[in-house]
Amino acid sequence: MKLFDTNGAPNPRRVRIFMAEKGVDCEKVELNIVKGDNLTDEFLSINPRGMMPTLQLDDGTVIDETVAICRYIEESHPEPALMGTDAVSKAQVESRQRHMEWDGLLPAMEAFRNSFPGFASRGLGGNVGDVPAINELAERGKASLERFYNRLNDELSDQQYIAGDNFTIADITALCTIDFAAGAARMPIPDSCANVRRWHEAVSARDSAKA
Amino acid sequence: MKLFDTNGAPNPRRVRIFMAEKGVDCEKVELNIVKGDNLTDEFLSINPRGMMPTLQLDDGTVIDETVAICRYIEESHPEPALMGTDAVSKAQVESRQRHMEWDGLLPAMEAFRNSFPGFASRGLGGNVGDVPAINELAERGKASLERFYNRLNDELSDQQYIAGDNFTIADITALCTIDFAAGAARMPIPDSCANVRRWHEAVSARDSAKA
Repeated sequence: MKLFDTNGAPNPRRVRIFMAEKGVDCEKVELNIVKGDNLTDEFLSINPRGMMPTLQLDDGTVIDETVAICRYIEESHPEPALMGTDAVSKAQVESRQRHMEWDGLLPAMEAFRNSFPGFASRGLGGNVGDVPAINELAERGKASLERFYNRLNDELSDQQYIAGDNFTIADITALCTIDFAAGAARMPIPDSCANVRRWHEAVSARDSAKA
Repeated sequence: MKLFDTNGAPNPRRVRIFMAEKGVDCEKVELNIVKGDNLTDEFLSINPRGMMPTLQLDDGTVIDETVAICRYIEESHPEPALMGTDAVSKAQVESRQRHMEWDGLLPAMEAFRNSFPGFASRGLGGNVGDVPAINELAERGKASLERFYNRLNDELSDQQYIAGDNFTIADITALCTIDFAAGAARMPIPDSCANVRRWHEAVSARDSAKA
């Protein structure tokens, strides 16, 4: 199988870390989003939405969307489990994963896309034509990230990982969100969030974090 | 188990339809979001994010986030399968489900929340304090919904359901998105989208659509 990938973007990194935790490797095709490699006819014939990451299986089947790709890897390589093991834990990991996406990654994306000069007419990702950036949305994204950090700090006061005692996909989403927020959106972990810092140090020390 | 529910909101309806398709029923507690029932101390002690739907199991375990609640129901009541049956179909259903959320439901929410007078200072849902509405975001949401309808119309030209041959959670998300877009965001299915209309008529005729 083949992963259409982008270094520096948070979603492809989520898949790379997920695969590294599973010990799964595959061919990677690097596409530069800023240059528009994701909007060429060639790539749009593979993924009409023009979004990365995209996985193509050996039989040509295309799977896009980060969490859907992770689901495929989880189902085909169950160990170590990164998405829960029974009805309740699967649901709780999914819930926490989604909190990280909606409360953290979405505002980080909004903060970046609506302030980065190179995306002044690409306020939304993918194959959507010109979409002007909205300054107020960049500001709203930063305020949401502040709330995200503070809530996460409370949640991590009495648990080791985002979804409880085990490292899961929710930690991967949170790590990629925070590293992206710190770099692209200039919103690093606040000094006041000691629990988030402790957690971030621990998950960043895993081999998979280099992926 | 007990579902904290809101009539008229798309996310709780997704869970109600999902449960109806499975033949699962439970106690429902109706909360009025416009009146702020979701932001009382009582509800925030159950779900600190103040979001509906929220499911509480008989042992007190709380599961929030629509798709996480559906995951719990899918795992505990596997038939009929609504989230795929093997690694590839599970991934593809998840991918399509997420397309419906990010390309349809998110912009419908943005179009509604940023134009509805009652939410002038509640531009984001849940327990986030005052967040001013952004007019431009309402307009961007409507433009995204137009693209969503047109793309969906192309996709439905050669398949019966959103994720292929079977009715799945992706159809439920799309149905609730479109009915919400048509009502709250005044963006009904365009006349030009005959495939979407055909699909909408078929899924609306299912018993579960009344849920």
